[in-house]
Amino acid sequence: MIISTIASHSSLQIILGANREGFKTRLYASPKRKNFYASLPVVDELIVADDLKEILSDEGIIIPHGSFVAYLGLDAIENSEARFFGNKRFLKWETKFELVDKALEKAGIPQVESVDLSEVRDDELYFVRMEGPKGGSGHFIAYGRELEDKLKSVSEPYRIERFIDGAYIYVHFFYSPILNRLELLGVDERLVIADSNKRRPFKALPYTIVGNKAVALRESLLPRLYDYGLAFVEAMRKLEPPFIGPFALHFAYDGDFHCIGFASRIDGGSNAKHWYSALYWGEEMLMGERIAREIKLALQEDRLEEVVT
Amino acid sequence: MIISTIASHSSLQIILGANREGFKTRLYASPKRKNFYASLPVVDELIVADDLKEILSDEGIIIPHGSFVAYLGLDAIENSEARFFGNKRFLKWETKFELVDKALEKAGIPQVESVDLSEVRDDELYFVRMEGPKGGSGHFIAYGRELEDKLKSVSEPYRIERFIDGAYIYVHFFYSPILNRLELLGVDERLVIADSNKRRPFKALPYTIVGNKAVALRESLLPRLYDYGLAFVEAMRKLEPPFIGPFALHFAYDGDFHCIGFASRIDGGSNAKHWYSALYWGEEMLMGERIAREIKLALQEDRLEEVVT
Amino acid sequence: MIISTIASHSSLQIILGANREGFKTRLYASPKRKNFYASLPVVDELIVADDLKEILSDEGIIIPHGSFVAYLGLDAIENSEARFFGNKRFLKWETKFELVDKALEKAGIPQVESVDLSEVRDDELYFVRMEGPKGGSGHFIAYGRELEDKLKSVSEPYRIERFIDGAYIYVHFFYSPILNRLELLGVDERLVIADSNKRRPFKALPYTIVGNKAVALRESLLPRLYDYGLAFVEAMRKLEPPFIGPFALHFAYDGDFHCIGFASRIDGGSNAKHWYSALYWGEEMLMGERIAREIKLALQEDRLEEVVT
Repeated sequence: MIISTIASHSSLQIILGANREGFKTRLYASPKRKNFYASLPVVDELIVADDLKEILSDEGIIIPHGSFVAYLGLDAIENSEARFFGNKRFLKWETKFELVDKALEKAGIPQVESVDLSEVRDDELYFVRMEGPKGGSGHFIAYGRELEDKLKSVSEPYRIERFIDGAYIYVHFFYSPILNRLELLGVDERLVIADSNKRRPFKALPYTIVGNKAVALRESLLPRLYDYGLAFVEAMRKLEPPFIGPFALHFAYDGDFHCIGFASRIDGGSNAKHWYSALYWGEEMLMGERIAREIKLALQEDRLEEVVT
Repeated sequence: MIISTIASHSSLQIILGANREGFKTRLYASPKRKNFYASLPVVDELIVADDLKEILSDEGIIIPHGSFVAYLGLDAIENSEARFFGNKRFLKWETKFELVDKALEKAGIPQVESVDLSEVRDDELYFVRMEGPKGGSGHFIAYGRELEDKLKSVSEPYRIERFIDGAYIYVHFFYSPILNRLELLGVDERLVIADSNKRRPFKALPYTIVGNKAVALRESLLPRLYDYGLAFVEAMRKLEPPFIGPFALHFAYDGDFHCIGFASRIDGGSNAKHWYSALYWGEEMLMGERIAREIKLALQEDRLEEVVT
Repeated sequence: MIISTIASHSSLQIILGANREGFKTRLYASPKRKNFYASLPVVDELIVADDLKEILSDEGIIIPHGSFVAYLGLDAIENSEARFFGNKRFLKWETKFELVDKALEKAGIPQVESVDLSEVRDDELYFVRMEGPKGGSGHFIAYGRELEDKLKSVSEPYRIERFIDGAYIYVHFFYSPILNRLELLGVDERLVIADSNKRRPFKALPYTIVGNKAVALRESLLPRLYDYGLAFVEAMRKLEPPFIGPFALHFAYDGDFHCIGFASRIDGGSNAKHWYSALYWGEEMLMGERIAREIKLALQEDRLEEVVT
């Protein structure tokens, strides 16, 4: 059995996991990324391709990640005959404000407050969020008095949120259909360009993500986050069944949790290794390793069709 | 043999360690925390209880952590017949400025400078610290000119400290009575709500702890910290013998170390995994795993009474 | 076979690695560092010495790190008869602006822009970098209008750089002559005293390094960094052959990479543990462990002379 993915986003941990669980691995990479991926012994087959849509005719099990929608498009994925780990139709849920709201409302997870431009107060700080996952690019902060002017140059769908003075944390979950269990596997904090302000007089800088850092969350906060995870799985099972595999809930925390979005696939923040997986598995696993483990378990029980679509 | 604790603070690593070292595990959880802890295979027995004082009649070995004093009270712990890992009477030492000062002075560890309200200078920055471990809540920074006003609303014991422009690091130690050895097992940095200032124009925000991040400390700083750890153990052996198990020293570092307090039990910052344990044990261990290892070593040598009180 | 180094900088991971790969370990420590290093079972022989130059007559394989030049001097190292892992003559390349520029230009790696004092603009922010590795000490930021005044008190060679509003990341590489392979083993972010600004109104503070934190870099950034690594190895093979072992490239990233320097030996930032090594080795290794592995591989193939000078 071969596990295939595109060389980007979180493919390293996906390939590492597949290798560890005994699968062959196949990676589709654009030419300029060849040197790095070709150096890795865990990659059994590297397909250097100008058009990454080639992966849609792969006969292995494809693990989608945060670059798939950008590279392939939602329609091509949903209409593909290829076997994807997880629910192909779940991928679109993070891409539109309308779907994000629908999922979070159904789950009863409190969202950050959105405001209309007419409601903003001059001296309050706001966060303008672009629609869909963009790795943080495009988002910006501004005072109410600056908003009208700054929004003139924004040409894509956006939303004005109250800025939360708090910590921004990203919680990584895996729902196993084979074990019928939700696992909370890690928490990360983003490293963004705007964090440069910890070393300079304040300046409004881009929120572009540069990397991720593992956070050991204060333990008393975990039970509520786990309940949010359970509620999310339950909601999505009604809205877009079946529910399979990885997702992440994103929060601002200022003493209360305010959900600022989610990833409807493996989240790049799970690249920051965490030890919580040992609580479920006795060993530390990256999310990519957890995915491969699920496929192996499914194959062992002859239930592969329950984890692919 | 059963190892028991309360579901909070650092119970995940305690339970994980107990499981790894071959003990049965028992966890006391309040009802609203049930879902998360019930999902974990490392928990052998989950006791959902409205009153967590039930743990005081547990017949296993109880591992106390940072929530014990809040949940149970110092008197109930000290008067309990239950077997606690570590010295029960050491737990109180972090709860009062007077005891903190006594311990640090005895150990000769330099403390951050405290000042009287009458001494503050208008344009200097100060840190107002509430007494006892509160997870950072209540502490605040202010300029001298703001202090009198801000202190009016403070109803609990506090202390005014000179604000140190530096890194805040938390050093995790384990003293083993069985091996007669002090181990430096890790260093963390807190993630607090006030860190939000790395992404916004400055605002005085709460110091509430949200999580912890591992720090690989500059190696040249470790020998002095280790010496402080040795001195602390030596001092507490005189002030409150015997000395057993985990503690943490907290420092602000601006080129010099200024001690800002300590944890007289496993510190939540040890939830951030670190590799230094491999230097002592050839494998990486969380503090909770180290505790379980000590109990196992004690049992093997029939010296359990040396590590419980 | 014995592996020897000086007790400082990154000696813990070097000793741990040597121990794991089956070597005897010998550590030279100044007297005030004795307690800590003496507590570590991975140290087979601790030589407490006032003069660390004793190491130059060690008959084992010496692993140099970032404190060697400061303790021993470049000439003493280059003229030593002792066997050093890596190319002794490479160590000097990080110590002079002229050599740094020569290496980076030869490799075609884009550098941060340096400016002359006469070119600075009053309201722009600049970073003044001292020559050579100093653990961040001495570097400072200032607006153009402040520079002339602040530079009056600087007595060592410096350079004025445009301040990059971005993330500062440090990329750790190992080039294996035995496998003829470049490995990208980790990325870290420095924790510096100036980071204190994430919790206080801005103040220009020292850039002194306090520690290092692992960063899981956004995966799409890795292939370019790997290409930079390859180009660096290729350039140094021409400028100062042979190329052996660890180095690090240092970057400011604001959407583009701007190289701000490199370490021509194991970089202290590799003390922050990272999982990328599992992609090459199936297990996680610190850089110090990777070094010991290379020596072991070389010995197994009777090619030790290819990795020592």
